[in-house]
Amino acid sequence: MLAPDLFPFAMRVRERAPLIHCLTNLVVTNFTANVLLAVGAAPAMVVAREEAAEFAAVANALSVNLGTLDLPQTKSIRAAIDAANQAGKPWILDPVAVGPLRFRTEFAFDLLELTPAVIRGNASEIISLAGGASSGRGVDSMALAESAVDAAQLLAMKTGAVVAVTGATDYVTDGRRTVALSNGSALMTRVTGVGCALSATVAAFAGVADEGERWAATVAAIAYSSIAGELAARDAALPGSFAVAYLDRLASLDAATFAATLVMGEHVV
Amino acid sequence: MLAPDLFPFAMRVRERAPLIHCLTNLVVTNFTANVLLAVGAAPAMVVAREEAAEFAAVANALSVNLGTLDLPQTKSIRAAIDAANQAGKPWILDPVAVGPLRFRTEFAFDLLELTPAVIRGNASEIISLAGGASSGRGVDSMALAESAVDAAQLLAMKTGAVVAVTGATDYVTDGRRTVALSNGSALMTRVTGVGCALSATVAAFAGVADEGERWAATVAAIAYSSIAGELAARDAALPGSFAVAYLDRLASLDAATFAATLVMGEHVV
Amino acid sequence: MLAPDLFPFAMRVRERAPLIHCLTNLVVTNFTANVLLAVGAAPAMVVAREEAAEFAAVANALSVNLGTLDLPQTKSIRAAIDAANQAGKPWILDPVAVGPLRFRTEFAFDLLELTPAVIRGNASEIISLAGGASSGRGVDSMALAESAVDAAQLLAMKTGAVVAVTGATDYVTDGRRTVALSNGSALMTRVTGVGCALSATVAAFAGVADEGERWAATVAAIAYSSIAGELAARDAALPGSFAVAYLDRLASLDAATFAATLVMGEHVV
Repeated sequence: MLAPDLFPFAMRVRERAPLIHCLTNLVVTNFTANVLLAVGAAPAMVVAREEAAEFAAVANALSVNLGTLDLPQTKSIRAAIDAANQAGKPWILDPVAVGPLRFRTEFAFDLLELTPAVIRGNASEIISLAGGASSGRGVDSMALAESAVDAAQLLAMKTGAVVAVTGATDYVTDGRRTVALSNGSALMTRVTGVGCALSATVAAFAGVADEGERWAATVAAIAYSSIAGELAARDAALPGSFAVAYLDRLASLDAATFAATLVMGEHVV
Repeated sequence: MLAPDLFPFAMRVRERAPLIHCLTNLVVTNFTANVLLAVGAAPAMVVAREEAAEFAAVANALSVNLGTLDLPQTKSIRAAIDAANQAGKPWILDPVAVGPLRFRTEFAFDLLELTPAVIRGNASEIISLAGGASSGRGVDSMALAESAVDAAQLLAMKTGAVVAVTGATDYVTDGRRTVALSNGSALMTRVTGVGCALSATVAAFAGVADEGERWAATVAAIAYSSIAGELAARDAALPGSFAVAYLDRLASLDAATFAATLVMGEHVV
Repeated sequence: MLAPDLFPFAMRVRERAPLIHCLTNLVVTNFTANVLLAVGAAPAMVVAREEAAEFAAVANALSVNLGTLDLPQTKSIRAAIDAANQAGKPWILDPVAVGPLRFRTEFAFDLLELTPAVIRGNASEIISLAGGASSGRGVDSMALAESAVDAAQLLAMKTGAVVAVTGATDYVTDGRRTVALSNGSALMTRVTGVGCALSATVAAFAGVADEGERWAATVAAIAYSSIAGELAARDAALPGSFAVAYLDRLASLDAATFAATLVMGEHVV
């Protein structure tokens, strides 16, 4: 496997400012929008069923997050996905807490049929989506990402999507190629929405990539964000100031620092 | 045109702590509340149709923002506007992304009949509301504010509202008097909700002004916020820390610094 | 009255990371989640009626806040409370703006029948819930907490809940024991959601306490938060940077600093 050239995707986002349509949860809307602005994308949260389809066709990519799913949102999400698919725009699925909660789990399985470009979740979410047994605690992200690599590859082959499992080490696979990324900081789990906003960043990177580049674009988005988090943890040791530093680092990361910090390897089974 | 005396409006807000009822979008609720607290106002987001009218009559002003409009919210907004009008309280319209999206655009035109005290938007939003052709990209704020001055004056004369077009230069008109404000910083576009929160700040300033002072109060709110942004950009060069500095500057701006920083001129056609 | 040993509750939260289900208002979701993460708890905002019950049974405690109540949320709240009660998990009521607004006030009185473990509000909210006349301005928190101590004791005896009235001085009572806490900073009222997030923190502390320890756990949660706020005000004098410092202090407060800063006394009538 040749290492993909990653930083150019970040440069494209800054140059093109892709419009990212987010149908996400109530907790992270603001932070997600600020993360997208920091990486150079243009966030837009158009939520009404009446407008979601119209807007998804105009946006460069769609990010769908099930964190606070309710019945009206399922309708907006379906309308937006249909419009994105018709317009040939990629859509990303973040299956928050899928597994133990029935309503969202059934909905997430329905969405798998609608050709997501990328699925990003933690280990237990990805294991659940791949058909495995979910763990007990609900939003449990404590399963090691390593334990979900097989499930991720299976899910990628089933759905045709790129699948990313994030944790202390992150894995990104398209079913054939699987890369392991080892940047980041434990502080990223002490600020709400870092993972959810990462899915929106994946959408931004996918929104400036060709269809054949989606695996590389997903690797780039996760590497870029994890490196920003790792650098931010050098600036700030506590979660309030870390969140501020994270946005600052996302907005200012350059190619040389990126290359000098990146820890990436091929995942060999 | 005599330059209006602006800083006294900010002092009145600090002294009276006007209660500002916000029916705004899901992305900016928190930041809007913190901006209002920073300038000395008391924010309140009472959203249920069952309570919106009751509360609008008690509040000092109402701020309506269409950023994540859906059908239930249209009902709360109508109820709140009717109550505000009956109680003689000013209400402010922020027509986010009006133009390309049909649902909110039709609703915004309906609202124009309900005597808004102030309308604040970017160039393409104001051009759309005045009946001009909207640009293509959806939430496009890239049209120059200058290009919308005629539309703003027309809209002001049609509706009786003060109209503010914000951008690199901001214009505020009541149809007869038009002022140009040239403070601010490009970083204000890198933090989500700065514009939306500005509309709430306009509501706070209008909430302590007499009806005949609304144009001056709107000029004051925009000048105050832009100067705070310009000063914050001297404290912080990246968006995460800029957002923090902006709130700090909003909470601490004094009359002498305000006067020394203000760049205001009459707009001559 | 022996002073309860408070800091051990904070240590239990850090060690056990209790899962706190929040049904709260749209303005404070993000800040509440970040406060819970800072104290070491695991926040979860599962809002749909279809999931609220399922999730409340799994969580360690439930935090209910009426700040932006609407009809759909009343159904999710009822379902979640029933499930929490059946599972023997404590639930906390934050009756935001109860008194002047009818819809939420009637709902809050209904909820009093459902055995809340703790009720936390400002003086006018607690006076209203205890059956007294509410003040005029809506979300008026200007009534002195002192004036509500009798109402708090009455409400505690009526409902069996621990009742906390917060203000410049905070009072916590179970009807028999009443303690006064005098830490904090006026800056805590300049950041939106500090009070709402405090209720979620009370839920986190109650979630690691036995039923017989709920009064002490509530005292501990309020003392812990007020001391963090007082220390943060030494780090930052303006509201934007204060909010950041508050999260940092919540995440790093240690036993020695806690003990050296605590100002607590028995409330003697």
